[in-house]
Amino acid sequence: MINLEEFKEQAHKFVDWITDYYLNIEKYSVKPDIKPYEVYNKLSVKPPENGEPVDSIFEEFKKVILPGMTHWQSPNFFAYFPANSSLPSILAEMLTAALGAQCMKWETSPAATELEESVMNWLKKMTGLPGNFHGVIQDTASTSTLCALLTAREKISDYKINNEGFKDGETYRVYCSTEAHSSVDKAVKIAGVGEKNLIKIETDKEYRLKPDVLEETIKKDLEAGKKPLCVIATLGTTSSTAVDPIKETGKICKKHNIWFHIDAAFAGSALILPEFRYLSEGIEYADSFVFNPHKWLFTNFDCSAYFVRDKQALVKTFQVVPEYLKSGNQGKVNDYCDWGIQLGRRFRALKLWFVIRNFGIKGLQDKLRKHISLARYIEEKIKAHNNFEIVVPANFNLICFRFKPGNITDNEKLNELNLQLLNKINNTGKIYLSHTRLKGIYTLRMATGQTNLEQKHVDQAWKVIQEQSENLKF
Amino acid sequence: MINLEEFKEQAHKFVDWITDYYLNIEKYSVKPDIKPYEVYNKLSVKPPENGEPVDSIFEEFKKVILPGMTHWQSPNFFAYFPANSSLPSILAEMLTAALGAQCMKWETSPAATELEESVMNWLKKMTGLPGNFHGVIQDTASTSTLCALLTAREKISDYKINNEGFKDGETYRVYCSTEAHSSVDKAVKIAGVGEKNLIKIETDKEYRLKPDVLEETIKKDLEAGKKPLCVIATLGTTSSTAVDPIKETGKICKKHNIWFHIDAAFAGSALILPEFRYLSEGIEYADSFVFNPHKWLFTNFDCSAYFVRDKQALVKTFQVVPEYLKSGNQGKVNDYCDWGIQLGRRFRALKLWFVIRNFGIKGLQDKLRKHISLARYIEEKIKAHNNFEIVVPANFNLICFRFKPGNITDNEKLNELNLQLLNKINNTGKIYLSHTRLKGIYTLRMATGQTNLEQKHVDQAWKVIQEQSENLKF
Repeated sequence: MINLEEFKEQAHKFVDWITDYYLNIEKYSVKPDIKPYEVYNKLSVKPPENGEPVDSIFEEFKKVILPGMTHWQSPNFFAYFPANSSLPSILAEMLTAALGAQCMKWETSPAATELEESVMNWLKKMTGLPGNFHGVIQDTASTSTLCALLTAREKISDYKINNEGFKDGETYRVYCSTEAHSSVDKAVKIAGVGEKNLIKIETDKEYRLKPDVLEETIKKDLEAGKKPLCVIATLGTTSSTAVDPIKETGKICKKHNIWFHIDAAFAGSALILPEFRYLSEGIEYADSFVFNPHKWLFTNFDCSAYFVRDKQALVKTFQVVPEYLKSGNQGKVNDYCDWGIQLGRRFRALKLWFVIRNFGIKGLQDKLRKHISLARYIEEKIKAHNNFEIVVPANFNLICFRFKPGNITDNEKLNELNLQLLNKINNTGKIYLSHTRLKGIYTLRMATGQTNLEQKHVDQAWKVIQEQSENLKF
Repeated sequence: MINLEEFKEQAHKFVDWITDYYLNIEKYSVKPDIKPYEVYNKLSVKPPENGEPVDSIFEEFKKVILPGMTHWQSPNFFAYFPANSSLPSILAEMLTAALGAQCMKWETSPAATELEESVMNWLKKMTGLPGNFHGVIQDTASTSTLCALLTAREKISDYKINNEGFKDGETYRVYCSTEAHSSVDKAVKIAGVGEKNLIKIETDKEYRLKPDVLEETIKKDLEAGKKPLCVIATLGTTSSTAVDPIKETGKICKKHNIWFHIDAAFAGSALILPEFRYLSEGIEYADSFVFNPHKWLFTNFDCSAYFVRDKQALVKTFQVVPEYLKSGNQGKVNDYCDWGIQLGRRFRALKLWFVIRNFGIKGLQDKLRKHISLARYIEEKIKAHNNFEIVVPANFNLICFRFKPGNITDNEKLNELNLQLLNKINNTGKIYLSHTRLKGIYTLRMATGQTNLEQKHVDQAWKVIQEQSENLKF
């Protein structure tokens, strides 16, 4: 293994390379032009007997790995939702890696635990969450939503499922809209509630959950002897960033004593903008709330901010304290390993602290507003083009559109064409978009949320989209 | 936010600091002398309105955060199990942070997915795991064991619990030894099996699961109409690195058609040493196996290597494919988001690749052998001392011992004294040990596994232990 002196030399080289990477990131094909196992087949089948110098490993990284990577930090990346990094976040990740601290319990890294409590309180203030919420960093919104569901399950069963398992023959019900994220389906499977008992409520024409249908469904379920467990509202759906009516949904949950979880994984960041704060009206009805600073708040993945009102219920759901983890401070401090699934935990608060401090609230707000205005800007261009249409107006910075030349009206034909168009666009390597389906419409998704996005990038993107649409044969 | 030029300057400063940190790491108190909320109270209550320069943030990191951290990478850290980092791993983490790639599906980062398959195959070869195992990197052994249990649950129920929820009134049973890790308890709670149905099998005098008792228990459960679901054997328990009899346990599982999971979180790394390979005899009976390269294979947390025989069962348990995640390569490639709980995934294979290549198999073996021989060395010293005793002989590099002056025979008194001794030792800040309880004996745990551990460190540790024992009043 390299010694400390060699490390220093290499790490300086790596810093130079990282800087160059960001300087030249737009020269890379955003999405690699690659076939399955093309990279794998270039890699050594056998692990090396003897150590190899870092230079050789780094060379192979550059020659074999890098050309097979999708460049998520490229400003030409418009697919999915972004997974934003930023320069202060990368700096913090360097420290986190160097400290290599295990932040499972307060005892095992006191400052990391307390910094986590501190920055989570900052986020609470920044997004206007209720003061009585308690925050913890999870890895992903999938995990956060699972934690919410498990806590709901335990609270409603008086912690009996944890202790005795499912046995009383209750049929629990979980509700979300048809547009909710797939992690809800996954959570319901894992928690043993069963996908069949995840009831997907229809949405209005703006893809928002219909509260009257929700309440009707709950009532019917109650009449049929089912036990409503949890409602998951989405603040910014993955397909189209639709925002479910939080207040009305929350009131229904309160009335029927159902755990109310809000999945704001992507759009939750927008709550730091006063002009979007109205969207979370009724948040005081929520039992739990998640949003991902690793999506649209410039903090390296993984960093999912999970907030819960009833901290005791969360801890009771997950806490197991074996002898080898007992310490004298039990109960006086937060032991975050008791706030979720994993025992081991990285020092993730540090990057969030670096990001919030280096950007400042204003800096973060400026970035978000810029992304939103770029979305509006490009949306206007798409709207004005004869051969394109906006499928659903952008609420934040996700544009949902499709190619729709005037002479084609058959939806299946249009879907086929848009699938072709998407492939053509992505194959250019110049930009990367993704897709979804909205009420049967194959829809192109363009999220303008990458950290270093400028107007020139969206201009170029729009140019590529138009060019490729002109090459379509139909 | 800092610009790229400022980033470069700062990142170079950070590299210098990291190098200095490792150079001077022994000057820090391993465990901070700190009270709850001492760090928290020094942190700003409010997030900053305006961005602050990196220099100020870094200064506060050094002044406020660092003195409150436990130094897990210090060679004087002997507590818990190590969470080892190493210099090549830190270099790789720099690249991972810079790329900021989301490795959920092949499509979203092809090279990362294929490198993961490649290094997991390396690990399989290095540890002698069966060739028909399939590997995936999870965050922690807690998550891996939960995945094993959930897959077992679905396979036995023909994927009905996932789909319909628990409803058939079955009482499932899970078995492990009384020494198994607390993550088993947590997994059983989460999976809805119920802690009551986790049957803890007694151990022999070396803290190994008793196969005959296991089989007896399974038979009784079957007679009583319970449904045995999963047996979890531990290869290297947390308290004393006991190794359950893999082969005998495996045979019982095979006979009764029970999922057999092996938790080798810490000691699994030792399987890269031919002289320890006999411990995994019978591994071919296993359905799943986990060990953590982030513990004793010098790879930054998080990096838990999970292997499963029936890949289809794993994927069927977790897969949910919404429209916005559909791609043309479904089924032709590994989409690792379908192999576990989280959708989002960091590029964790890179650090493992850097570590294995830079150390080489021989380099890794040398390190492990050194750690084991240092444990033997210090164990001899403890054994030879009149006032100390070895509670259970070290299997690998974890020494379980206690202070036991000849004139005291009352176990409660001894327990009290050893608790006092542990506090005294850790309060010196010179070394950090942890504890456990073995059949009622309060036991001090000293794991000699830190990456940069040398004989001088264990000599010093033994000196501190003796000195502090001499200061005990009794």
